Amino acid sequence: MQLGMIGLGRMGANLVRRLMRAGHECVVFDVAPEAIAALAAEGAVPASSLAELVDKLEGPRNLWVMVPAGYVQGTVDQLAELLAPDDAIIDGGNSYYRDDLTRAAQLRPRGIHYVDVGTSGGVWGLDRGYCLMIGGEDAVVERLDPIWRTIAPGAGDAEPTPGRTAGGTAQEGYLHCGPNGAGHFVKMVHNGVEYGMMAAVAEGLSIIKNADVGLRSQEIDAETTPLRNPEHYQYEIDVAEVAEVWRRGSVVGSWLVDLTAAALAADPDLSTFGGRVSDSGEGRWTVVAAVEEGVPANVIQASLNARFSSRDLNDFQDKVQSAMRSQFGGHHEKPADVPASPS
Amino acid sequence: MQLGMIGLGRMGANLVRRLMRAGHECVVFDVAPEAIAALAAEGAVPASSLAELVDKLEGPRNLWVMVPAGYVQGTVDQLAELLAPDDAIIDGGNSYYRDDLTRAAQLRPRGIHYVDVGTSGGVWGLDRGYCLMIGGEDAVVERLDPIWRTIAPGAGDAEPTPGRTAGGTAQEGYLHCGPNGAGHFVKMVHNGVEYGMMAAVAEGLSIIKNADVGLRSQEIDAETTPLRNPEHYQYEIDVAEVAEVWRRGSVVGSWLVDLTAAALAADPDLSTFGGRVSDSGEGRWTVVAAVEEGVPANVIQASLNARFSSRDLNDFQDKVQSAMRSQFGGHHEKPADVPASPS
Amino acid sequence: MQLGMIGLGRMGANLVRRLMRAGHECVVFDVAPEAIAALAAEGAVPASSLAELVDKLEGPRNLWVMVPAGYVQGTVDQLAELLAPDDAIIDGGNSYYRDDLTRAAQLRPRGIHYVDVGTSGGVWGLDRGYCLMIGGEDAVVERLDPIWRTIAPGAGDAEPTPGRTAGGTAQEGYLHCGPNGAGHFVKMVHNGVEYGMMAAVAEGLSIIKNADVGLRSQEIDAETTPLRNPEHYQYEIDVAEVAEVWRRGSVVGSWLVDLTAAALAADPDLSTFGGRVSDSGEGRWTVVAAVEEGVPANVIQASLNARFSSRDLNDFQDKVQSAMRSQFGGHHEKPADVPASPS
Amino acid sequence: MQLGMIGLGRMGANLVRRLMRAGHECVVFDVAPEAIAALAAEGAVPASSLAELVDKLEGPRNLWVMVPAGYVQGTVDQLAELLAPDDAIIDGGNSYYRDDLTRAAQLRPRGIHYVDVGTSGGVWGLDRGYCLMIGGEDAVVERLDPIWRTIAPGAGDAEPTPGRTAGGTAQEGYLHCGPNGAGHFVKMVHNGVEYGMMAAVAEGLSIIKNADVGLRSQEIDAETTPLRNPEHYQYEIDVAEVAEVWRRGSVVGSWLVDLTAAALAADPDLSTFGGRVSDSGEGRWTVVAAVEEGVPANVIQASLNARFSSRDLNDFQDKVQSAMRSQFGGHHEKPADVPASPS
Repeated sequence: MQLGMIGLGRMGANLVRRLMRAGHECVVFDVAPEAIAALAAEGAVPASSLAELVDKLEGPRNLWVMVPAGYVQGTVDQLAELLAPDDAIIDGGNSYYRDDLTRAAQLRPRGIHYVDVGTSGGVWGLDRGYCLMIGGEDAVVERLDPIWRTIAPGAGDAEPTPGRTAGGTAQEGYLHCGPNGAGHFVKMVHNGVEYGMMAAVAEGLSIIKNADVGLRSQEIDAETTPLRNPEHYQYEIDVAEVAEVWRRGSVVGSWLVDLTAAALAADPDLSTFGGRVSDSGEGRWTVVAAVEEGVPANVIQASLNARFSSRDLNDFQDKVQSAMRSQFGGHHEKPADVPASPS
Repeated sequence: MQLGMIGLGRMGANLVRRLMRAGHECVVFDVAPEAIAALAAEGAVPASSLAELVDKLEGPRNLWVMVPAGYVQGTVDQLAELLAPDDAIIDGGNSYYRDDLTRAAQLRPRGIHYVDVGTSGGVWGLDRGYCLMIGGEDAVVERLDPIWRTIAPGAGDAEPTPGRTAGGTAQEGYLHCGPNGAGHFVKMVHNGVEYGMMAAVAEGLSIIKNADVGLRSQEIDAETTPLRNPEHYQYEIDVAEVAEVWRRGSVVGSWLVDLTAAALAADPDLSTFGGRVSDSGEGRWTVVAAVEEGVPANVIQASLNARFSSRDLNDFQDKVQSAMRSQFGGHHEKPADVPASPS
Repeated sequence: MQLGMIGLGRMGANLVRRLMRAGHECVVFDVAPEAIAALAAEGAVPASSLAELVDKLEGPRNLWVMVPAGYVQGTVDQLAELLAPDDAIIDGGNSYYRDDLTRAAQLRPRGIHYVDVGTSGGVWGLDRGYCLMIGGEDAVVERLDPIWRTIAPGAGDAEPTPGRTAGGTAQEGYLHCGPNGAGHFVKMVHNGVEYGMMAAVAEGLSIIKNADVGLRSQEIDAETTPLRNPEHYQYEIDVAEVAEVWRRGSVVGSWLVDLTAAALAADPDLSTFGGRVSDSGEGRWTVVAAVEEGVPANVIQASLNARFSSRDLNDFQDKVQSAMRSQFGGHHEKPADVPASPS
Repeated sequence: MQLGMIGLGRMGANLVRRLMRAGHECVVFDVAPEAIAALAAEGAVPASSLAELVDKLEGPRNLWVMVPAGYVQGTVDQLAELLAPDDAIIDGGNSYYRDDLTRAAQLRPRGIHYVDVGTSGGVWGLDRGYCLMIGGEDAVVERLDPIWRTIAPGAGDAEPTPGRTAGGTAQEGYLHCGPNGAGHFVKMVHNGVEYGMMAAVAEGLSIIKNADVGLRSQEIDAETTPLRNPEHYQYEIDVAEVAEVWRRGSVVGSWLVDLTAAALAADPDLSTFGGRVSDSGEGRWTVVAAVEEGVPANVIQASLNARFSSRDLNDFQDKVQSAMRSQFGGHHEKPADVPASPS
């Protein structure tokens, strides 16, 4: 089937490739002409403007918008002027689901459909397929089924869920989650869960890495807690091997552990990383949703905060604590260049 | 090769079965005669006492102890009297790694080896294989390699880790982690990571389940925070389908999500569960290790605390808070039978 | 000076009393005529409608609104129609600071001032004074100084802060924090800090209360972690006495500990409380602010979540965890009427 | 009454001074002769060795040990050889309560009493008095009542707890908490509560400090979450003034807020602090106790972890997270010298 793709960055380009491999026709546009040319060379139909893109699509048109979050609204605004009733705009990026509600309401009077799709899979999706979480009206989501089916992983290697009789598309890796915003809502929470899982693995490996703390000499002073039983912490364990062994047969087996094993295989000390962990919106929004719903979410919140602290956003509060300690106990800070204990 | 198995509960019996399938000879003992008889019927050599078990094994003997944690020490004590130098006791249960250190030291003067093995895989291990995390002296761990190799999953379906050149056994699902205690240490932390991952998934699905909070009527009183934007929480999302769709192509794909999907397929509301989540030691010990090492582990700690709260161990502290609120604000509690908001 | 008070609940009525004691003239209105009559009997000027209230005040008028959060906007809307340029509306309730921004912008074209005041002190403020956190334009906040000064505690018993040379009003217990919304912003965070402090005290007393866990018999089964060293938990400590002793000379000395001691003096087991801890908006908004600012706030967030869990809002996620444990380990939940361990 | 003091550091010396002011006779010893001389000049009886100290005391002797934690055991061992039945050793430091149990058992066969005293009050205790949490046998704790009474703050300025009829000493600032170890147990938890309160205040002030985040220019890139509503974060609030205003009439009024106000009055940006917050044992032990008791203590645990993170003990786990992000998303870390967002 025919699809227009706006935005040919890594994700957009790979979606086009995956669709073309399955025989779909893709008309493509990007602000960078060379990105258009590259995909045209692979068989896509190039368009040098949004207007041309729209012209080259037969109605009812389906346009997938895959641009940075800051450009989605502008693109939707422009498309609103170009499109006809029953055309559909698919937002496949990481938009806030509340913006989906606004955009769908904006487009509704013109008869233009809006579909929000959370797309998970990262740089591996071209071959592995992308997990799709979809929000929108039934009819338009149904109409796009051939697109979803191609982009999604399909049943693949994963064994069927025992006892599952529900049928449906979830077992193919895509799901119509509900009305507008539901797709991005589920994707938002997916990323919150991802934050929590990542932090759990990272904490665990750090505890294993530091199982040698009893082997290290410790400063003895009033500002450092001495290790009570150093004989319990005499292990020098290879964390790369631990990540590898957890990949098979263990309860924590997961794609994130697979990736961790790969990263540690390439760089066992992770010395190429500084440890400044970005957060990209979904984790924050998940926490806000939990708070507004009244759902306790200590794990996801702690994992978001760990990212903040990794970027030193805890500096002022730490100074406040040092200042209090100085006041009540005359405690002087240990200088920053002499770590209180090894990391 | 020949192995003695002491303890024929679910785990012990399945280990024997998996070993026999691969041609190993298993001599088996349990306090329950019928458990011995059942495995004898499947081809195991029965022993009606520890002494008989020891007699029926050729030296150097290898005995796998798979008994409840409270019985390990007694079993080791009895075996110490029966075994000869160069024999080996393998503790495959969930012992605290500090006990491994004590037991190894107890057996060393007699020339008896002690090997600690963390065994992950649960009820699925018979077919799927068990992930093994092993601690002990090099020579004895090496000697037992045919046993490990059989019990472990092997490379199986999991793709090789890209860039991995290390060789070794981790890619077969078993790992010699270090000296005595290292196996149970890594297994302990594995379970801590498991707690964190489980909580992350559970929190996320709960946020999705409660995405309908704007559809529910809310009490308006001074003790309830009204939902500011009920229009943002109008989704009735099928969490069973969400768990299923996350199984393929998503970043959170994992065995735990597979299992969650299976549970939700069987019981979409989980109404067969009361939500009282036990903890079985490893999570607690992981937190203690993190604290003693000075590793911040908010996620794993929060997941342990969530289990405590699921069993109402937060009752007294909640009453303290209610009492304070009553004191400073004259706030009266809402009665327990009228939930402050729906769960 | 003259002040109109709208809303004569506990807080509004006590503010009027405290103002009248200092010689200010208060014109008062409430939807409940008996509330008006009661204060009129104490010397206030009664008004039977907002219009009459406005009539009875000389310009430029100052009107303090002290009504439940859900009625503030309606009251402001009505007043906007009745007031004249340079009149001022003071919102002394717990409004969300974002609403302050909207209301100030709504009133600005009419020349009406808006002042937001966070008021802390609870039921004790009549005698103790109220801590005031104020947002608004300089001139109008300055004009109301006699009101602030009367309501606030004044320097009182609290010793001057050593080294403080700043002067200003903070040392009298009121502070002009910044432009519109700043007062409620600071009050919001104040309540977040309050949540954290309350939870810290509650957790600590719970740890002390449970120092007797080694004296209690424990179930021995696979679902319960046995206490490794029961000899370490043999203390039956009187938590009421602990709260009392912490009131004097300790680092945790605070009004919240004072109140806890009072509550425990009256009801040592707190058996009159069910432990369902409400949250009233500010804690949630504080968490949202922390997330949007990128400030890690694990303590405040955990204290909010503890309130959610106290109201059983963790039920679904606990069931998800039980369901996973059942899947991978065949673990059966312990029945709810047999606590896993005592609280 | 007569007391021997061993250890004349800040705490020990001030205890001696406070005791002498009230007419008690103090015999003093320290490893530093000048410390002995200084107190002798103030009226104490000097002793140049432990043996001399013991000689100069009349039986039954009372010896207060106030030495660094690492020296307590050695001092107790020496004293055990020098003392007679019915003499008493008082450990006033921050010993782990489990060591109290061991030491009391060690001394019991000799008839020597052991008393553990948690002493709170820091550098202010000389004038303010010290809050005392005491563990030991009834008779010996009773015998030392004149000492406790003098060191403790007494009822002082703090108002009586409303409704309190219990009598007893807690209202004077000292409490016999229970048998050996109970004093240090309660002091340990006191410090855990202190950690939590400190973190709550620090987080809150940090949220207020960052209320200006909407005024700062933000990088727009895929690794930074843009602030959705910068108009909500336009406040430049003086945190020193906020701390000051919270001292009077607010719910968070506390000694820790008093101290914070003092620190901010002296150094409004806290630029003299690096923010490396030490932890000194009690916080860690409190967390271990909570875990072993099964008490959820997210707030206290998070406050301990914040201290770990303030000392960069989170580095490895942050690198693990960055490595995962690089693997699944091709995300490159932002360089450490370009903060992801301002602190």
